[in-house]
Amino acid sequence: MSKPQTSPAPLTLEDARRIIAAGERKADDIGQPMNIAVADAGGNLIAHVRMDGAWMGSIDISIKKAWTSRAFDISTKELATLTQSGGDFFGLHASNDGRVMIFAGGVPLKRDGVVVGAVGVSGGSGKQDHEVAEAAAKAL
Amino acid sequence: MSKPQTSPAPLTLEDARRIIAAGERKADDIGQPMNIAVADAGGNLIAHVRMDGAWMGSIDISIKKAWTSRAFDISTKELATLTQSGGDFFGLHASNDGRVMIFAGGVPLKRDGVVVGAVGVSGGSGKQDHEVAEAAAKAL
Amino acid sequence: MSKPQTSPAPLTLEDARRIIAAGERKADDIGQPMNIAVADAGGNLIAHVRMDGAWMGSIDISIKKAWTSRAFDISTKELATLTQSGGDFFGLHASNDGRVMIFAGGVPLKRDGVVVGAVGVSGGSGKQDHEVAEAAAKAL
Amino acid sequence: MSKPQTSPAPLTLEDARRIIAAGERKADDIGQPMNIAVADAGGNLIAHVRMDGAWMGSIDISIKKAWTSRAFDISTKELATLTQSGGDFFGLHASNDGRVMIFAGGVPLKRDGVVVGAVGVSGGSGKQDHEVAEAAAKAL
Repeated sequence: MSKPQTSPAPLTLEDARRIIAAGERKADDIGQPMNIAVADAGGNLIAHVRMDGAWMGSIDISIKKAWTSRAFDISTKELATLTQSGGDFFGLHASNDGRVMIFAGGVPLKRDGVVVGAVGVSGGSGKQDHEVAEAAAKAL
Repeated sequence: MSKPQTSPAPLTLEDARRIIAAGERKADDIGQPMNIAVADAGGNLIAHVRMDGAWMGSIDISIKKAWTSRAFDISTKELATLTQSGGDFFGLHASNDGRVMIFAGGVPLKRDGVVVGAVGVSGGSGKQDHEVAEAAAKAL
Repeated sequence: MSKPQTSPAPLTLEDARRIIAAGERKADDIGQPMNIAVADAGGNLIAHVRMDGAWMGSIDISIKKAWTSRAFDISTKELATLTQSGGDFFGLHASNDGRVMIFAGGVPLKRDGVVVGAVGVSGGSGKQDHEVAEAAAKAL
Repeated sequence: MSKPQTSPAPLTLEDARRIIAAGERKADDIGQPMNIAVADAGGNLIAHVRMDGAWMGSIDISIKKAWTSRAFDISTKELATLTQSGGDFFGLHASNDGRVMIFAGGVPLKRDGVVVGAVGVSGGSGKQDHEVAEAAAKAL
C-alpha cells in the first residue's frame, strides 16, 4: 500500500472563479439565480457568489453543501438517498455541528481522479441545484 | 436583465405594529394567544409580541418563522411540503444554524410584488398559525 | 378577558424535592434508574437527580424534557404524536436551539389548573419515562 | 440494592491503542479506511485515529459515536432502530447539543460486564463501521 509521492495541484482562486462563472452561466440559462460556493481539499471556502435575487437562506446552504461534498467525497444528491428516515445514515445531518447538508447541489471537484475540493449550489429545486453544480464542476 | 432603479420602501416599525395588531385581532377572534414577529428584508427582527398566555416555546419559533419565510421568499406552510423525510429538501432544517422552521406560520410580506420582510406566528395549530399570519400580512 | 389578580404559588425547592422523591420511588418499583429534573414556570431548572446507574446521555434529556413540557404546556408524549415526519409540527425539534425534546417523559406541573413548572424523566423506555414522570407530578 | 465496593480498572491509553490497532487491522482487511475513536467511562476521548484516505466528515462522527455508545450503554446500531421517524426515541439526535449519533458504528467497551468506555467507527457503510467497531472492542 505504498502511496504516490505527488498530489494533484491544489485549487487556486482562479480555478474557483472559473468554476463559479460556469455555474453562473448555467444558472442564467435556466433562469434561476443561485448561491455558488467552492471549497478546497480541507473543506474551507475559497470563494462564494450570491447572484442577484438568489435566496438569502441559500448562502449558508451553498457553503455547507460544498463542505459536505468534500467531507464525504460524494455528491449531496447521492447522500440524500442514504439519509432519509429509515436509511443507513439517517441522523448524519446531526453530525459535524450542523455543517452537513443532505440534499442535492454539492459535487466533489476532482483532478486526476483525486478530490481536491467541492462546489455547492443552492437557489432552486434539487434538480436545478445539482445541474448547476455539475456544470460548474466541469469547468475545473 | 437590467434592474429597476428603485425599490419599494422598507418596512417601518409603524408597519410592523400595524401588522402585529392585525394578527392579534385574528388571534383573539379564534381564541388562541399567539407569538407574532415581523422581520425586515434582511431577515432581522423589527418587533415581536407575546400575547398573554401564549406558549413560551413559541417566542423563538415565531421569530424564526419570520426569518425563514424571508430567507426563502416562501410561506413556511409551503416549505413544509418539501422538507418531510423523502422530500426534495429533507434536511433543510439542519441548515442556517437552527434558524429554519419548516412548519406553517411564516408568510412573506410584499410591497409592489417585492418581498420586503416576513411575519411569523406561533401559538396554535399549524392551521391557526397560518391563518393569523395571513391576516397579519394583509395589514401591510 | 379580565385576568385573575392572583397566581398559584411558585414551585419551591421543597416541592421539587418531593416530586423527585416520588419519581425515584416509582423508578425503584419498576427497577430502572432514571434522571429526573424539575423546572419552574420560566422553564429554569430547580433540581435534578441522576440515580445510580442511570444513563449519562439522559442528564441533558431529562432537563430538556422538563423545559419542553413547560414551554408548550403539554406532555412530551403528546408532542411526539405531532412531530414525526409528516406531522403538523415536524421540525419543532430544530427550534429553540436544541432544547426541544419530542419523546415521552416530560409532564407539566399544575396548581389550581395553572402550569407552574414541569418534570422531565429519562432513563428507560418511553413508556417507563412517562410513568415515572406522572408518578412524580402527582406528588405536587 | 447494595453496590459492589470495587469497579473494573479504567481504560488506559494502552488499552485504547490496542483497541484502535485491532480496528485498523479489520479496516485493512475489508479495504475501507476508517476513523476510529475510543472514549472513557465519562464519554471523554482517549485517542482517535484517521487512517489515510478516510473521510474528513467522519472524524467528528467517530468521536460522537463513541460518546453516544457510552452515554446510553448501547451500540449505535441498536439505537438506530429506536430513533427513526415513528420510533419511540425519534428526536433523540436533537439532544445533548448534537453529540448523539444514531447510526451504526459505536459499541460499548465492557470489563467484567461493566461498561468502561466505548469505541466509535466511521468511514464506510453502516455494516462496515459496525464490523470494525466490534473487532476493535474484542481487543479490550
